[in-house]
Amino acid sequence: MIDITIVGLGLIGGSIALDLNSQMGVDVYGFDLSPQHATTALKRNLIKGIRSFEEYCAQSDIIILSMPVDQIEHILPKILDNILNKTTVIDVGSTKESICLSIQGHKNRDRYVAAHPLAGTEFSGPSAAISDLFRKKKNIICEKEKSAKDALQTALHLFESLGMSTYFLKPSEHDRHLAYVSHLSHISSFTLSLTVLDIEKDENQIFNLASTGFESTVRLAKSSPTTWAPIFKKNKGHLAKALESYISRLESFKKAIESEDYSESINMMKEANRIKHILTK
Amino acid sequence: MIDITIVGLGLIGGSIALDLNSQMGVDVYGFDLSPQHATTALKRNLIKGIRSFEEYCAQSDIIILSMPVDQIEHILPKILDNILNKTTVIDVGSTKESICLSIQGHKNRDRYVAAHPLAGTEFSGPSAAISDLFRKKKNIICEKEKSAKDALQTALHLFESLGMSTYFLKPSEHDRHLAYVSHLSHISSFTLSLTVLDIEKDENQIFNLASTGFESTVRLAKSSPTTWAPIFKKNKGHLAKALESYISRLESFKKAIESEDYSESINMMKEANRIKHILTK
Repeated sequence: MIDITIVGLGLIGGSIALDLNSQMGVDVYGFDLSPQHATTALKRNLIKGIRSFEEYCAQSDIIILSMPVDQIEHILPKILDNILNKTTVIDVGSTKESICLSIQGHKNRDRYVAAHPLAGTEFSGPSAAISDLFRKKKNIICEKEKSAKDALQTALHLFESLGMSTYFLKPSEHDRHLAYVSHLSHISSFTLSLTVLDIEKDENQIFNLASTGFESTVRLAKSSPTTWAPIFKKNKGHLAKALESYISRLESFKKAIESEDYSESINMMKEANRIKHILTK
Repeated sequence: MIDITIVGLGLIGGSIALDLNSQMGVDVYGFDLSPQHATTALKRNLIKGIRSFEEYCAQSDIIILSMPVDQIEHILPKILDNILNKTTVIDVGSTKESICLSIQGHKNRDRYVAAHPLAGTEFSGPSAAISDLFRKKKNIICEKEKSAKDALQTALHLFESLGMSTYFLKPSEHDRHLAYVSHLSHISSFTLSLTVLDIEKDENQIFNLASTGFESTVRLAKSSPTTWAPIFKKNKGHLAKALESYISRLESFKKAIESEDYSESINMMKEANRIKHILTK
């Protein structure tokens, strides 16, 4: 039996647990700072039992870290200090640069694999865990050359077993790209919600007038602040650039509308339409 | 048999045709400036035949206008000049203030019903028409007091037959609310696409890294420029205000991230989270 501990039993950790649990030859245990999350995970049979830090460092073949990224960065060096030779430690956080930096040069660096499975929903906590969340989705692994061959193979096999295909990127590349294709989307969505809530004081009107278009654009505004605040913090450099570029384009759009520059707004929308061909490739 | 002509056989007009066609006692004809759209609509059996302006003014019990809003404004007075006493003219455009103004005081004003069924997808043209697009969605009718009782009843019955529930708003209220809950979403989405396309010159990377979150937020960027440019033009006042408020909040968010004001970004996201409870009411 392969012994796996999932540290952080939220949406992502809980969903990984659910999928791994359905596989043969795997025992899945868990840890969560929140007793409530731990209890829910146990009740939902996501895990076989709860372990302490000492227990999971001493007993796991694989440790998966699926907490907010600042907590991953805090605990990862301590885990690497305490694990067995054979253990593979994988984190699944949404930023990679500062996590990789935090264990650079650690004597057990090669037992660690820096990963980011690109999947999620707007919900959070172990009650939001669903099976097949990762199926047909993409996974990123960073600094594969710094992981021991067997640790990398273990991680690749694990993500493959969840139905994912893995791509390799440098941590800085990962964080820059994700600032644009994920983190910026979240901020645009959170901000759209704030803007609409503020103007539509009569909340019933939002409900009546919200069409599926608004619901889709604002969906990510339901996401967990405790997950996203640390991501924004850890990726602040790339994200500030992305936001600057986004705001400047919004200003251009606003100008085209205010000056009734019909052909300019048509051109911008035609260019934006190109996303259609890219996302359906 | 009730004789209906749909003027503008795009996504909305085509989808209305599809639903009406499945009803007993209804003959649906069409008109479209684009010969290609007209041919597609005929081939898909969305309509029984194509009519000229003179034909549909002389023969229809109901005329439904589902073109871009500037075209509706252009043709509506001419149609009211030429219809029979019994005809009901309904427009389904996404702005209402300037359309209602364009026929204010017209001798046949009471044959017209200003409507906006809140439904759509990011696709366009008659090939994008789908059945049940309107089912369980909301419809807005403006200036109901200016429509003849029988015309209003006809419109209400028609939208009910599509599965919609109708709400009543003043044109200015409609346009102000829609600026926030629909038009702003489209601009935020178009702009997100532009920003990401510009930075991600290597288009493969977008495809690899785009998760369901990005796809949902950027979905509306696939929408038709010829539909949306006139909407933005006709609703420029309210929309400019909405954009100003949106941009100013984005600036605040950016500032909170850059200054690592953790509690400020947490607070903004918690406030944004409220949309969860409103949209699932």
